[in-house]
Amino acid sequence: MTTPEERISELGIVLPPVTAPRWAYVPAVLSGNLLFISGQIAIENGRPLHPGKLGREIDVASGQEAARGCALSALAIARKELGSLDRVARAVKSTVYVASAAGFTDQPTVANGASDLLRDVFGDAGLGARAAVGVAELPLGASVEAEFIFEVRA
Amino acid sequence: MTTPEERISELGIVLPPVTAPRWAYVPAVLSGNLLFISGQIAIENGRPLHPGKLGREIDVASGQEAARGCALSALAIARKELGSLDRVARAVKSTVYVASAAGFTDQPTVANGASDLLRDVFGDAGLGARAAVGVAELPLGASVEAEFIFEVRA
Amino acid sequence: MTTPEERISELGIVLPPVTAPRWAYVPAVLSGNLLFISGQIAIENGRPLHPGKLGREIDVASGQEAARGCALSALAIARKELGSLDRVARAVKSTVYVASAAGFTDQPTVANGASDLLRDVFGDAGLGARAAVGVAELPLGASVEAEFIFEVRA
Repeated sequence: MTTPEERISELGIVLPPVTAPRWAYVPAVLSGNLLFISGQIAIENGRPLHPGKLGREIDVASGQEAARGCALSALAIARKELGSLDRVARAVKSTVYVASAAGFTDQPTVANGASDLLRDVFGDAGLGARAAVGVAELPLGASVEAEFIFEVRA
Repeated sequence: MTTPEERISELGIVLPPVTAPRWAYVPAVLSGNLLFISGQIAIENGRPLHPGKLGREIDVASGQEAARGCALSALAIARKELGSLDRVARAVKSTVYVASAAGFTDQPTVANGASDLLRDVFGDAGLGARAAVGVAELPLGASVEAEFIFEVRA
Repeated sequence: MTTPEERISELGIVLPPVTAPRWAYVPAVLSGNLLFISGQIAIENGRPLHPGKLGREIDVASGQEAARGCALSALAIARKELGSLDRVARAVKSTVYVASAAGFTDQPTVANGASDLLRDVFGDAGLGARAAVGVAELPLGASVEAEFIFEVRA
Protein backbone atom coordinates (compact mmCIF):
# COMPACT_ATOMS: atom_id res chain seq x y z
CA MET A 1 0.00 0.00 0.00
CA THR A 2 1.55 3.26 -1.11
CA THR A 3 0.40 6.55 0.40
CA PRO A 4 -0.76 9.58 -1.60
CA GLU A 5 2.53 11.36 -0.94
CA GLU A 6 4.45 8.32 -2.14
CA ARG A 7 2.31 8.14 -5.27
CA ILE A 8 2.98 11.79 -6.02
CA SER A 9 6.69 11.10 -5.81
CA GLU A 10 6.45 7.95 -7.92
CA LEU A 11 4.45 9.69 -10.60
CA GLY A 12 6.82 12.65 -10.64
CA ILE A 13 3.95 15.05 -9.96
CA VAL A 14 5.16 18.50 -9.00
CA LEU A 15 2.62 20.63 -7.18
CA PRO A 16 2.51 24.35 -7.94
CA PRO A 17 3.28 26.97 -5.29
CA VAL A 18 0.36 28.14 -3.15
CA THR A 19 -0.04 31.87 -3.60
CA ALA A 20 -2.13 34.21 -1.49
CA PRO A 21 -5.49 34.88 -3.15
CA ARG A 22 -5.66 38.26 -4.89
CA TRP A 23 -9.24 38.69 -3.72
CA ALA A 24 -11.17 38.42 -0.44
CA TYR A 25 -11.13 34.72 0.31
CA VAL A 26 -8.83 32.02 1.60
CA PRO A 27 -7.54 29.01 -0.33
CA ALA A 28 -9.23 26.51 1.96
CA VAL A 29 -11.29 26.10 5.10
CA LEU A 30 -11.29 23.02 7.30
CA SER A 31 -14.62 22.62 9.08
CA GLY A 32 -15.01 19.45 11.09
CA ASN A 33 -13.32 16.90 8.87
CA LEU A 34 -14.34 18.51 5.58
CA LEU A 35 -11.73 20.56 3.77
CA PHE A 36 -13.35 23.04 1.38
CA ILE A 37 -10.97 24.20 -1.37
CA SER A 38 -11.73 27.44 -3.20
CA GLY A 39 -12.38 27.41 -6.93
CA GLN A 40 -9.06 26.91 -8.67
CA ILE A 41 -7.90 27.79 -12.14
CA ALA A 42 -4.70 26.47 -13.69
CA ILE A 43 -2.01 29.15 -13.73
CA GLU A 44 1.23 28.97 -15.66
CA ASN A 45 3.78 31.79 -15.54
CA GLY A 46 1.21 34.02 -13.88
CA ARG A 47 -1.45 33.50 -16.55
CA PRO A 48 -4.29 31.04 -17.04
CA LEU A 49 -3.21 27.87 -18.80
CA HIS A 50 -5.28 27.44 -21.98
CA PRO A 51 -7.54 30.47 -21.65
CA GLY A 52 -10.69 30.60 -23.74
CA LYS A 53 -13.73 28.45 -24.29
CA LEU A 54 -14.26 24.83 -25.02
CA GLY A 55 -15.95 24.40 -28.36
CA ARG A 56 -14.21 27.45 -29.73
CA GLU A 57 -10.45 27.95 -29.33
CA ILE A 58 -9.81 25.29 -26.66
CA ASP A 59 -10.04 21.60 -27.55
CA VAL A 60 -10.95 18.83 -25.12
CA ALA A 61 -7.34 17.74 -24.57
CA SER A 62 -6.32 21.28 -23.60
CA GLY A 63 -9.38 21.62 -21.39
CA GLN A 64 -8.35 18.44 -19.63
CA GLU A 65 -4.90 19.89 -19.01
CA ALA A 66 -6.52 22.99 -17.55
CA ALA A 67 -8.75 20.81 -15.35
CA ARG A 68 -5.71 18.81 -14.24
CA GLY A 69 -4.03 22.08 -13.32
CA CYS A 70 -7.00 22.99 -11.11
CA ALA A 71 -6.61 19.69 -9.27
CA LEU A 72 -2.86 20.19 -8.89
CA SER A 73 -3.48 23.57 -7.28
CA ALA A 74 -6.07 22.03 -5.00
CA LEU A 75 -3.61 19.34 -3.90
CA ALA A 76 -0.95 21.97 -3.23
CA ILE A 77 -3.42 23.84 -1.03
CA ALA A 78 -4.53 20.68 0.76
CA ARG A 79 -0.93 19.69 1.48
CA LYS A 80 -0.20 23.14 2.86
CA GLU A 81 -3.33 23.14 5.04
CA LEU A 82 -2.89 19.61 6.34
CA GLY A 83 0.88 19.21 6.36
CA SER A 84 0.62 16.09 4.19
CA LEU A 85 -1.77 14.70 1.61
CA ASP A 86 -1.65 11.45 3.56
CA ARG A 87 -4.18 13.06 5.88
CA VAL A 88 -6.77 13.15 3.09
CA ALA A 89 -9.20 10.31 3.62
CA ARG A 90 -11.05 10.77 0.37
CA ALA A 91 -12.37 13.08 -2.30
CA VAL A 92 -15.95 13.96 -1.37
CA LYS A 93 -17.21 16.31 -4.06
CA SER A 94 -15.89 18.41 -6.90
CA THR A 95 -17.65 20.96 -9.06
CA VAL A 96 -16.03 21.60 -12.42
CA TYR A 97 -17.06 24.73 -14.29
CA VAL A 98 -16.15 24.61 -17.97
CA ALA A 99 -16.25 27.83 -20.03
CA SER A 100 -18.34 26.59 -22.93
CA ALA A 101 -19.10 28.07 -26.34
CA ALA A 102 -22.57 27.43 -27.74
CA GLY A 103 -23.07 23.77 -28.50
CA PHE A 104 -20.20 22.34 -26.43
CA THR A 105 -21.65 19.59 -24.27
CA ASP A 106 -18.71 17.40 -23.28
CA GLN A 107 -17.99 18.98 -19.91
CA PRO A 108 -17.58 15.55 -18.24
CA THR A 109 -14.66 14.54 -20.42
CA VAL A 110 -12.97 17.85 -19.69
CA ALA A 111 -13.62 17.42 -15.97
CA ASN A 112 -11.91 14.04 -16.08
CA GLY A 113 -8.63 15.92 -16.36
CA ALA A 114 -9.09 16.83 -12.70
CA SER A 115 -10.70 13.60 -11.55
CA ASP A 116 -8.13 11.34 -13.18
CA LEU A 117 -5.37 13.13 -11.30
CA LEU A 118 -7.16 12.63 -7.99
CA ARG A 119 -7.55 8.96 -8.76
CA ASP A 120 -3.88 8.68 -9.65
CA VAL A 121 -2.94 10.16 -6.28
CA PHE A 122 -5.59 8.73 -3.94
CA GLY A 123 -6.68 5.58 -5.78
CA ASP A 124 -10.37 4.78 -5.53
CA ALA A 125 -10.62 7.24 -2.65
CA GLY A 126 -9.90 9.95 -5.20
CA LEU A 127 -13.16 9.31 -6.99
CA GLY A 128 -15.72 11.55 -5.35
CA ALA A 129 -19.13 12.84 -6.27
CA ARG A 130 -18.93 15.42 -9.03
CA ALA A 131 -20.87 17.94 -11.05
CA ALA A 132 -19.62 19.33 -14.36
CA VAL A 133 -21.40 22.25 -15.97
CA GLY A 134 -20.80 24.65 -18.83
CA VAL A 135 -20.59 28.28 -17.79
CA ALA A 136 -20.53 31.52 -19.74
CA GLU A 137 -17.25 33.03 -18.55
CA LEU A 138 -14.59 32.34 -15.93
CA PRO A 139 -12.17 34.54 -14.00
CA LEU A 140 -9.17 35.78 -16.00
CA GLY A 141 -10.58 34.08 -19.08
CA ALA A 142 -9.76 30.61 -17.75
CA SER A 143 -11.29 27.68 -19.61
CA VAL A 144 -11.86 25.60 -16.46
CA GLU A 145 -12.41 26.33 -12.78
CA ALA A 146 -12.83 23.56 -10.22
CA GLU A 147 -13.60 23.47 -6.51
CA PHE A 148 -13.17 20.48 -4.23
CA ILE A 149 -14.27 19.06 -0.89
CA PHE A 150 -11.98 16.50 0.73
CA GLU A 151 -12.57 14.43 3.84
CA VAL A 152 -9.71 14.56 6.31
CA ARG A 153 -8.79 11.76 8.72
CA ALA A 154 -9.80 12.48 12.27
CA MET B 1 -46.94 8.95 9.70
CA THR B 2 -45.88 7.38 6.45
CA THR B 3 -42.23 6.85 5.61
CA PRO B 4 -40.51 8.07 2.44
CA GLU B 5 -40.49 4.53 1.02
CA GLU B 6 -44.20 4.19 1.75
CA ARG B 7 -44.89 7.52 0.06
CA ILE B 8 -42.96 6.43 -3.01
CA SER B 9 -45.15 3.34 -3.20
CA GLU B 10 -48.36 5.28 -2.60
CA LEU B 11 -47.51 7.84 -5.25
CA GLY B 12 -46.54 5.15 -7.74
CA ILE B 13 -43.11 6.68 -8.21
CA VAL B 14 -40.73 4.38 -10.03
CA LEU B 15 -37.06 5.17 -9.57
CA PRO B 16 -34.74 4.74 -12.55
CA PRO B 17 -31.90 2.21 -12.53
CA VAL B 18 -28.58 3.39 -11.13
CA THR B 19 -25.96 3.05 -13.80
CA ALA B 20 -22.18 3.26 -13.38
CA PRO B 21 -20.93 6.74 -14.30
CA ARG B 22 -19.32 6.90 -17.73
CA TRP B 23 -16.69 9.30 -16.41
CA ALA B 24 -14.29 9.45 -13.46
CA TYR B 25 -16.57 9.95 -10.49
CA VAL B 26 -18.95 8.03 -8.26
CA PRO B 27 -22.70 8.56 -7.95
CA ALA B 28 -22.52 9.52 -4.29
CA VAL B 29 -20.22 9.89 -1.31
CA LEU B 30 -21.31 9.59 2.31
CA SER B 31 -19.09 11.67 4.58
CA GLY B 32 -20.16 11.80 8.19
CA ASN B 33 -23.92 12.05 7.89
CA LEU B 34 -23.93 14.08 4.70
CA LEU B 35 -24.65 12.23 1.46
CA PHE B 36 -23.32 14.13 -1.54
CA ILE B 37 -25.01 13.13 -4.80
CA SER B 38 -23.26 13.86 -8.09
CA GLY B 39 -24.84 16.18 -10.63
CA GLN B 40 -27.70 14.30 -12.28
CA ILE B 41 -29.38 14.72 -15.61
CA ALA B 42 -32.65 13.06 -16.55
CA ILE B 43 -32.05 10.16 -18.92
CA GLU B 44 -34.73 8.34 -20.90
CA ASN B 45 -33.87 5.48 -23.21
CA GLY B 46 -30.20 6.33 -22.94
CA ARG B 47 -30.63 9.98 -23.94
CA PRO B 48 -31.29 13.21 -22.06
CA LEU B 49 -34.97 13.88 -21.47
CA HIS B 50 -35.90 17.24 -23.04
CA PRO B 51 -32.47 18.27 -24.31
CA GLY B 52 -31.91 21.89 -25.23
CA LYS B 53 -32.24 25.25 -23.55
CA LEU B 54 -34.96 26.91 -21.59
CA GLY B 55 -36.13 30.03 -23.35
CA ARG B 56 -35.47 28.46 -26.73
CA GLU B 57 -36.74 24.97 -27.57
CA ILE B 58 -37.62 23.80 -24.02
CA ASP B 59 -40.58 25.29 -22.18
CA VAL B 60 -40.89 25.58 -18.42
CA ALA B 61 -43.13 22.51 -18.08
CA SER B 62 -40.61 20.34 -19.94
CA GLY B 63 -37.78 21.82 -17.92
CA GLN B 64 -39.65 20.88 -14.77
CA GLU B 65 -39.95 17.31 -16.02
CA ALA B 66 -36.22 17.25 -16.65
CA ALA B 67 -35.60 18.63 -13.15
CA ARG B 68 -37.92 16.02 -11.68
CA GLY B 69 -35.93 13.36 -13.54
CA CYS B 70 -32.74 14.64 -11.90
CA ALA B 71 -34.34 14.23 -8.48
CA LEU B 72 -35.61 10.74 -9.35
CA SER B 73 -32.08 9.71 -10.28
CA ALA B 74 -30.77 11.19 -7.05
CA LEU B 75 -33.33 9.24 -5.02
CA ALA B 76 -32.39 6.04 -6.83
CA ILE B 77 -28.76 6.63 -5.94
CA ALA B 78 -29.57 7.51 -2.32
CA ARG B 79 -31.63 4.34 -1.95
CA LYS B 80 -28.84 2.23 -3.37
CA GLU B 81 -26.22 3.88 -1.13
CA LEU B 82 -28.30 3.73 2.05
CA GLY B 83 -30.39 0.63 1.51
CA SER B 84 -33.59 2.60 2.05
CA LEU B 85 -34.74 6.19 1.62
CA ASP B 86 -36.13 5.94 5.14
CA ARG B 87 -32.58 6.61 6.30
CA VAL B 88 -32.69 10.10 4.77
CA ALA B 89 -33.27 12.60 7.56
CA ARG B 90 -33.71 15.59 5.30
CA ALA B 91 -32.75 17.42 2.14
CA VAL B 92 -29.93 19.81 3.00
CA LYS B 93 -29.02 21.59 -0.23
CA SER B 94 -29.59 21.31 -3.93
CA THR B 95 -28.01 23.19 -6.80
CA VAL B 96 -30.03 23.24 -9.97
CA TYR B 97 -28.25 24.26 -13.17
CA VAL B 98 -30.64 25.25 -15.95
CA ALA B 99 -29.33 25.54 -19.53
CA SER B 100 -30.67 28.98 -20.36
CA ALA B 101 -30.97 30.87 -23.62
CA ALA B 102 -30.47 34.64 -23.47
CA GLY B 103 -33.23 36.30 -21.50
CA PHE B 104 -34.58 33.22 -19.69
CA THR B 105 -34.75 34.09 -16.01
CA ASP B 106 -37.24 31.65 -14.50
CA GLN B 107 -34.75 29.07 -13.25
CA PRO B 108 -36.55 28.77 -9.87
CA THR B 109 -39.80 27.54 -11.41
CA VAL B 110 -37.87 24.96 -13.43
CA ALA B 111 -35.97 23.87 -10.32
CA ASN B 112 -39.27 23.29 -8.54
CA GLY B 113 -39.66 20.18 -10.68
CA ALA B 114 -36.93 18.63 -8.54
CA SER B 115 -37.88 20.24 -5.25
CA ASP B 116 -41.57 19.35 -5.49
CA LEU B 117 -40.66 15.70 -5.90
CA LEU B 118 -38.47 15.77 -2.80
CA ARG B 119 -41.32 17.35 -0.85
CA ASP B 120 -43.73 14.71 -2.11
CA VAL B 121 -41.41 11.98 -0.85
CA PHE B 122 -39.99 13.46 2.35
CA GLY B 123 -42.64 16.01 3.33
CA ASP B 124 -41.30 19.22 4.84
CA ALA B 125 -37.96 17.49 5.35
CA GLY B 126 -37.67 17.42 1.56
CA LEU B 127 -37.45 21.20 1.40
CA GLY B 128 -33.79 22.07 1.65
CA ALA B 129 -31.69 25.09 0.88
CA ARG B 130 -31.33 25.60 -2.85
CA ALA B 131 -29.61 27.59 -5.53
CA ALA B 132 -30.90 27.75 -9.12
CA VAL B 133 -28.77 29.32 -11.83
CA GLY B 134 -28.80 29.59 -15.59
CA VAL B 135 -25.78 28.06 -17.28
CA ALA B 136 -24.48 28.15 -20.82
CA GLU B 137 -24.37 24.44 -21.65
CA LEU B 138 -24.83 21.12 -19.89
CA PRO B 139 -23.45 17.61 -20.47
CA LEU B 140 -25.02 15.72 -23.37
CA GLY B 141 -27.10 18.77 -24.18
CA ALA B 142 -29.33 18.28 -21.12
CA SER B 143 -31.62 21.17 -20.19
CA VAL B 144 -31.24 20.65 -16.44
CA GLU B 145 -28.58 19.21 -14.12
CA ALA B 146 -29.07 19.01 -10.38
CA GLU B 147 -26.88 17.96 -7.47
CA PHE B 148 -28.06 17.23 -3.95
CA ILE B 149 -26.85 16.92 -0.37
CA PHE B 150 -28.97 14.83 1.99
CA GLU B 151 -28.59 14.37 5.72
CA VAL B 152 -28.62 10.75 6.80
CA ARG B 153 -29.86 9.49 10.17
CA ALA B 154 -27.05 8.51 12.50
CA MET C 1 -12.97 42.08 20.97
CA THR C 2 -16.24 43.13 19.41
CA THR C 3 -18.79 40.52 18.37
CA PRO C 4 -20.37 40.27 14.90
CA GLU C 5 -23.62 41.77 16.21
CA GLU C 6 -21.69 44.65 17.76
CA ARG C 7 -19.85 45.24 14.51
CA ILE C 8 -23.11 45.33 12.58
CA SER C 9 -24.36 48.01 14.95
CA GLU C 10 -21.11 49.98 14.80
CA LEU C 11 -21.05 49.90 11.02
CA GLY C 12 -24.70 50.89 10.79
CA ILE C 13 -25.50 47.84 8.69
CA VAL C 14 -29.22 47.23 8.38
CA LEU C 15 -30.18 43.71 7.40
CA PRO C 16 -33.11 43.24 5.04
CA PRO C 17 -36.27 41.42 6.11
CA VAL C 18 -36.33 37.66 5.61
CA THR C 19 -39.20 36.77 3.34
CA ALA C 20 -40.64 33.34 2.70
CA PRO C 21 -39.22 31.86 -0.52
CA ARG C 22 -41.62 32.06 -3.45
CA TRP C 23 -40.52 28.63 -4.62
CA ALA C 24 -40.07 25.16 -3.11
CA TYR C 25 -37.12 25.58 -0.80
CA VAL C 26 -36.21 27.02 2.57
CA PRO C 27 -33.86 29.95 3.25
CA ALA C 28 -31.40 27.84 5.22
CA VAL C 29 -30.74 24.38 6.63
CA LEU C 30 -28.59 23.68 9.67
CA SER C 31 -27.05 20.23 9.46
CA GLY C 32 -24.59 19.41 12.23
CA ASN C 33 -22.76 22.68 12.65
CA LEU C 34 -22.92 23.72 9.01
CA LEU C 35 -25.53 26.27 8.05
CA PHE C 36 -26.35 26.11 4.35
CA ILE C 37 -27.89 29.33 3.02
CA SER C 38 -29.88 29.21 -0.22
CA GLY C 39 -28.74 31.20 -3.23
CA GLN C 40 -29.54 34.85 -2.57
CA ILE C 41 -30.10 37.74 -4.89
CA ALA C 42 -30.20 41.36 -3.77
CA ILE C 43 -33.76 42.66 -3.69
CA GLU C 44 -34.76 46.30 -3.36
CA ASN C 45 -38.40 47.35 -3.33
CA GLY C 46 -39.42 43.90 -4.48
CA ARG C 47 -37.12 43.87 -7.51
CA PRO C 48 -33.54 42.76 -8.13
CA LEU C 49 -30.99 45.45 -7.36
CA HIS C 50 -28.94 46.17 -10.50
CA PRO C 51 -30.50 43.60 -12.83
CA GLY C 52 -28.64 42.70 -15.99
CA LYS C 53 -25.23 41.39 -16.94
CA LEU C 54 -21.75 42.38 -16.02
CA GLY C 55 -19.84 43.44 -19.10
CA ARG C 56 -22.99 44.87 -20.63
CA GLU C 57 -25.31 47.19 -18.67
CA ILE C 58 -23.92 46.53 -15.16
CA ASP C 59 -20.50 47.82 -14.18
CA VAL C 60 -18.23 46.24 -11.60
CA ALA C 61 -19.17 48.72 -8.85
CA SER C 62 -22.87 47.97 -9.30
CA GLY C 63 -22.15 44.25 -9.42
CA GLN C 64 -20.33 44.59 -6.11
CA GLU C 65 -23.37 46.29 -4.62
CA ALA C 66 -25.52 43.43 -5.83
CA ALA C 67 -23.08 40.93 -4.35
CA ARG C 68 -23.08 42.84 -1.07
CA GLY C 69 -26.88 42.64 -1.10
CA CYS C 70 -26.69 38.86 -1.43
CA ALA C 71 -24.47 38.71 1.64
CA LEU C 72 -26.77 41.03 3.59
CA SER C 73 -29.70 38.72 2.84
CA ALA C 74 -27.63 35.74 3.91
CA LEU C 75 -26.77 37.42 7.20
CA ALA C 76 -30.43 38.24 7.80
CA ILE C 77 -31.29 34.59 7.27
CA ALA C 78 -28.46 33.37 9.47
CA ARG C 79 -29.51 35.70 12.28
CA LYS C 80 -33.10 34.50 12.04
CA GLU C 81 -32.06 30.83 12.01
CA LEU C 82 -29.56 31.13 14.84
CA GLY C 83 -31.03 33.90 16.96
CA SER C 84 -27.82 35.90 16.73
CA LEU C 85 -24.92 36.23 14.32
CA ASP C 86 -22.63 35.80 17.30
CA ARG C 87 -23.28 32.08 16.94
CA VAL C 88 -21.50 32.06 13.57
CA ALA C 89 -18.03 30.64 14.06
CA ARG C 90 -16.82 31.37 10.57
CA ALA C 91 -17.57 31.60 6.87
CA VAL C 92 -16.79 28.23 5.31
CA LYS C 93 -17.59 28.55 1.62
CA SER C 94 -19.40 30.83 -0.75
CA THR C 95 -20.26 30.40 -4.39
CA VAL C 96 -20.86 33.60 -6.29
CA TYR C 97 -22.62 33.35 -9.64
CA VAL C 98 -22.17 36.45 -11.78
CA ALA C 99 -24.40 36.95 -14.84
CA SER C 100 -21.72 37.66 -17.42
CA ALA C 101 -21.87 39.00 -20.95
CA ALA C 102 -19.34 37.60 -23.43
CA GLY C 103 -15.83 38.62 -22.51
CA PHE C 104 -16.46 39.66 -18.88
CA THR C 105 -13.88 37.85 -16.76
CA ASP C 106 -13.66 39.84 -13.53
CA GLN C 107 -16.06 37.76 -11.47
CA PRO C 108 -13.71 37.76 -8.44
CA THR C 109 -13.81 41.54 -8.06
CA VAL C 110 -17.60 41.47 -8.23
CA ALA C 111 -17.71 38.66 -5.67
CA ASN C 112 -15.64 40.75 -3.29
CA GLY C 113 -18.76 42.85 -2.72
CA ALA C 114 -20.10 39.89 -0.73
CA SER C 115 -16.82 38.76 0.80
CA ASP C 116 -15.80 42.21 1.99
CA LEU C 117 -19.05 42.52 3.91
CA LEU C 118 -18.48 39.17 5.62
CA ARG C 119 -15.00 40.29 6.60
CA ASP C 120 -16.36 43.57 7.95
CA VAL C 121 -18.79 41.67 10.15
CA PHE C 122 -16.79 38.59 11.17
CA GLY C 123 -13.21 39.77 10.77
CA ASP C 124 -10.79 37.15 9.47
CA ALA C 125 -13.39 34.49 10.25
CA GLY C 126 -15.49 36.04 7.50
CA LEU C 127 -12.97 35.02 4.86
CA GLY C 128 -14.00 31.59 3.68
CA ALA C 129 -13.25 29.44 0.69
CA ARG C 130 -14.95 30.79 -2.41
CA ALA C 131 -15.71 30.12 -6.03
CA ALA C 132 -16.78 32.85 -8.45
CA VAL C 133 -18.05 31.93 -11.90
CA GLY C 134 -19.76 33.68 -14.79
CA VAL C 135 -23.17 32.27 -15.64
CA ALA C 136 -25.53 32.83 -18.55
CA GLU C 137 -28.65 34.02 -16.73
CA LEU C 138 -29.91 34.37 -13.16
CA PRO C 139 -33.37 34.30 -11.58
CA LEU C 140 -35.44 37.45 -12.08
CA GLY C 141 -32.64 38.87 -14.23
CA ALA C 142 -30.38 39.43 -11.21
CA SER C 143 -26.76 40.26 -11.95
CA VAL C 144 -25.40 38.29 -9.00
CA GLU C 145 -26.54 35.29 -6.95
CA ALA C 146 -24.54 33.98 -4.01
CA GLU C 147 -24.89 31.01 -1.69
CA PHE C 148 -23.05 30.53 1.59
CA ILE C 149 -22.04 27.89 4.11
CA PHE C 150 -21.33 29.07 7.65
CA GLU C 151 -19.95 27.11 10.57
CA VAL C 152 -21.97 27.49 13.75
CA ARG C 153 -20.57 27.25 17.26
CA ALA C 154 -21.44 24.00 18.98
